[in-house]
Amino acid sequence: MSRDRISLFDTTLRDGAQTQGVQFSASEKHQISDVLDGLGLDYIEGGWPGANPTDTAFFAKPPKTQATFTAFGMTKRSGRSAENDDVLAPVVNAGTAAVCLVGKAHDFHVTTALGITLDENVANIAASFAHLSGLGREGLFDAEHFFDGYKSNADYSLQCIHAAYDAGARWIVLCDTNGGTLPDEISRIVTDVIASGIPGSHVAIHTHNDTENAVAGSLAAVMAGARQIQGTLNGLGERCGNANLTTLIPTLMLKEPYASMFETGVTPEALKGLRRASRMLDDILNRVPAKQAPYVGASAFAHKSGLHASAIAKDPSTYEHVDPAAVGNSRIVPMSNQAGQSNLRARLADAGIDVAADNPALARIIKRIKEKEAQGFSYDSAQASFELLARQELKIMPRFFEVKRYRVTVERRKNKYGEMMSLSEAVVVTKVGGKRFLNVSESRGPDGSDQGPVNALSRALSKDLGPYQKIIDDMRLVDFKVRITNGGTEAVTRVIIDSEDAQGRMWSTVGVSPNIVDASFDALVDAINWKLIRDAD
Amino acid sequence: MSRDRISLFDTTLRDGAQTQGVQFSASEKHQISDVLDGLGLDYIEGGWPGANPTDTAFFAKPPKTQATFTAFGMTKRSGRSAENDDVLAPVVNAGTAAVCLVGKAHDFHVTTALGITLDENVANIAASFAHLSGLGREGLFDAEHFFDGYKSNADYSLQCIHAAYDAGARWIVLCDTNGGTLPDEISRIVTDVIASGIPGSHVAIHTHNDTENAVAGSLAAVMAGARQIQGTLNGLGERCGNANLTTLIPTLMLKEPYASMFETGVTPEALKGLRRASRMLDDILNRVPAKQAPYVGASAFAHKSGLHASAIAKDPSTYEHVDPAAVGNSRIVPMSNQAGQSNLRARLADAGIDVAADNPALARIIKRIKEKEAQGFSYDSAQASFELLARQELKIMPRFFEVKRYRVTVERRKNKYGEMMSLSEAVVVTKVGGKRFLNVSESRGPDGSDQGPVNALSRALSKDLGPYQKIIDDMRLVDFKVRITNGGTEAVTRVIIDSEDAQGRMWSTVGVSPNIVDASFDALVDAINWKLIRDAD
Repeated sequence: MSRDRISLFDTTLRDGAQTQGVQFSASEKHQISDVLDGLGLDYIEGGWPGANPTDTAFFAKPPKTQATFTAFGMTKRSGRSAENDDVLAPVVNAGTAAVCLVGKAHDFHVTTALGITLDENVANIAASFAHLSGLGREGLFDAEHFFDGYKSNADYSLQCIHAAYDAGARWIVLCDTNGGTLPDEISRIVTDVIASGIPGSHVAIHTHNDTENAVAGSLAAVMAGARQIQGTLNGLGERCGNANLTTLIPTLMLKEPYASMFETGVTPEALKGLRRASRMLDDILNRVPAKQAPYVGASAFAHKSGLHASAIAKDPSTYEHVDPAAVGNSRIVPMSNQAGQSNLRARLADAGIDVAADNPALARIIKRIKEKEAQGFSYDSAQASFELLARQELKIMPRFFEVKRYRVTVERRKNKYGEMMSLSEAVVVTKVGGKRFLNVSESRGPDGSDQGPVNALSRALSKDLGPYQKIIDDMRLVDFKVRITNGGTEAVTRVIIDSEDAQGRMWSTVGVSPNIVDASFDALVDAINWKLIRDAD
Repeated sequence: MSRDRISLFDTTLRDGAQTQGVQFSASEKHQISDVLDGLGLDYIEGGWPGANPTDTAFFAKPPKTQATFTAFGMTKRSGRSAENDDVLAPVVNAGTAAVCLVGKAHDFHVTTALGITLDENVANIAASFAHLSGLGREGLFDAEHFFDGYKSNADYSLQCIHAAYDAGARWIVLCDTNGGTLPDEISRIVTDVIASGIPGSHVAIHTHNDTENAVAGSLAAVMAGARQIQGTLNGLGERCGNANLTTLIPTLMLKEPYASMFETGVTPEALKGLRRASRMLDDILNRVPAKQAPYVGASAFAHKSGLHASAIAKDPSTYEHVDPAAVGNSRIVPMSNQAGQSNLRARLADAGIDVAADNPALARIIKRIKEKEAQGFSYDSAQASFELLARQELKIMPRFFEVKRYRVTVERRKNKYGEMMSLSEAVVVTKVGGKRFLNVSESRGPDGSDQGPVNALSRALSKDLGPYQKIIDDMRLVDFKVRITNGGTEAVTRVIIDSEDAQGRMWSTVGVSPNIVDASFDALVDAINWKLIRDAD
């Protein structure tokens, strides 16, 4: 049986930007569209050109994507032609292959929110898509509040979407804008829409998670015949979020009856990058990854119950509905038992350290990791710091240098022109092979501006390490993540530093302290030690 | 039409305890059962007496609940009678009115995980529930892996649950243990179970969220005739969590067709406590509340899009599927890049500033917000900084004090005992009403430990502000959030500070700079200015 193609439309950069607390920069939008494009999605909606400076800048220099890059906007307003609508113009002028325009499909909204007649609204929709068709653009009609509109006045809602379809819109996107429609209703109404004459191959579903049914509603629409799903990575989006593509993609590809009925543009190989894509988005946004996220969460294949863990040891399929490797995730069995130690050995082997199964240091390492995690450390992403901790317990951690003391000062005061200026300065004293090194550095960005105390400390620390200096000269601090967390009963600061070197290695280290400068300094020292282990003779 | 009663069974204290990172104490279990009981649930499952010291202690001194307090355990093992099974004994001896026993209902698990014959397993189930019935206890049979078992060998799965039902089990709980069954399958299989002769009024559903369908699967089961839902508050639970009662309860009570078809033991008045119950659980567990949680999350009724916000101002039902007050939540119209002027005026009105719709300052405020957001500022949560910015443009921002300069130093060195110690010290010079104030502070936590440069600056800044000092004396810094973001092309640090005062006010301010200390300082200054606007004459 041939499988139907499901088109995947990502709106992380548009509806996802409506997430409270999320504010993409143009450069973040570029990074995220690279991540999305690596998955093999069909459409990437970039934002609304003309609506704000970020989106305007992003569309002025759009990303190169395999996916069809799409601009969002709204149907033309009353009282002017589509050609002369100055809100529609920048959307069209962005020159994307596809354009998605939102319009009203609910009588109540037309009269209450827009304050125009029902016929005027239909005419605006038709004229907007005729305009796009005339320009040879692929049009998508976001039929706002379609489901509520259908329940209020089915004939009018259908009239709106048929106007768009007849004027050449490629996809009719049925939006459950306020997230209140339940899956059974979605199924029934999608069936009616297709029966009204719009083929399922032109029907898309756009749900929100206000009743925790965004994924279920999308699946219900597909079973009723819709052939495009709109959603976001990690379920970002207005209010409770959009349909979560991170969950929908593996469900469509791995779960029956979907896997036998449908295919998507995501390859099994790309699917293995799903967990990583999810984490990269969180990293870019500095959000804490949701542990319990289906498929990609750190807990998704964690078997805490003793009953489960012992059955898993006999056969993983006993408690896992899919293979964690299929989405790039892995099984977690609590460190306290046998399986935990074998996990640890595997992780050490990844760092090039082979440890015999009966080495008593394994239990000590697990104990110290638990203690440190209780203090606020996290070794999930700080693999380099984990390696250093394990090396200490295994007595294979060389002492390259010792930090005797440091001092960092931040001052803000008027300069000679009477302007307020900041300056950070750090002094670090180290001892290398019996010799003291006293180094001082200021912090300066490319434009001469002050980059703050951590930058100054990093410079002073890596200014002269004596015999090791040439080894660390190619190190570069590429990212710096700060999170306030709990260590015991008190709030502490956790700093994770990502470093790289000229050989293309990338490594992450962690520091924890109530004092953010101290936490950063410890992560910097770990980063240098890890590099020295690799490259010092 | 009379409504069918849906029984709500909470397993937060049992299956919820399998959440990674969650470790309840007996006293926390008491606090949580109070919260659960306040909602009006039908059953509260407390844990597994005899399985671990916490649960044994909790059942030795059980909470007094309106709900039926329930002990969890497993069906008797082979080779001994139910009366003589020393795992079952402490469960029965806990003396609870109801007892829930898990047993296998999937042939593969019986032979692979238990290693006994299929008939032996059925006999164990029957004997266990006959034992409970003989003692006059209400029995629930947790039919583990029921759905997978049914797909593998329907006859055998049905044989298992009928054995429990015939032996007197009150509820047959159909468990989707590994979370892999999708709603349509759940619907079909529940229908089959009821057709096999177990009345829907004795059928319960227990789902997990591994495909983000736990809520949808529970609703599908109810529509197919099941009359009990098992779940947890905030969706706690093994791996990706259990069905989220925090979402299911309002959906059953407020959404059609459920509200017309069913009733629960939760009153509309108790439902208004739902958001609070959800927060209390997070507080007890020291978890960050999920902003995007349906119904109860801080973002659940937050309208960030300008289009949405302007429609909401006309009629809230345009973008809200239920009234936030019904679950004790409230509407938020945040400032953002997408904000329109009506959104802005509503936000200013919340701050007590009425601005006419034709005031040209509105456009200037939006322009400045957009400029600041392009630099990395975010006003979504920093309402107080937003207000100060607006006041400047409206020329109603008093100048209370001026910061002339500051200097902060962090040192790490050996103390007199040879231990490495940190110390942070800040000097701040301010000018108030023509008079200079020079203040210095160290940073010390409750235990004397160094809390870092931001703490020292905060102390020095609020040590002596002359005539304003008495006004800011009751201010307290309650949280401090740091994020690295992009300001234009360069990485900058965004700091958000939450403050509160003795009157119970809470407010948030934001600062942005490449230098984290500078960013923090600006947020601190905003925090003080906001307080002075409120309380200075």
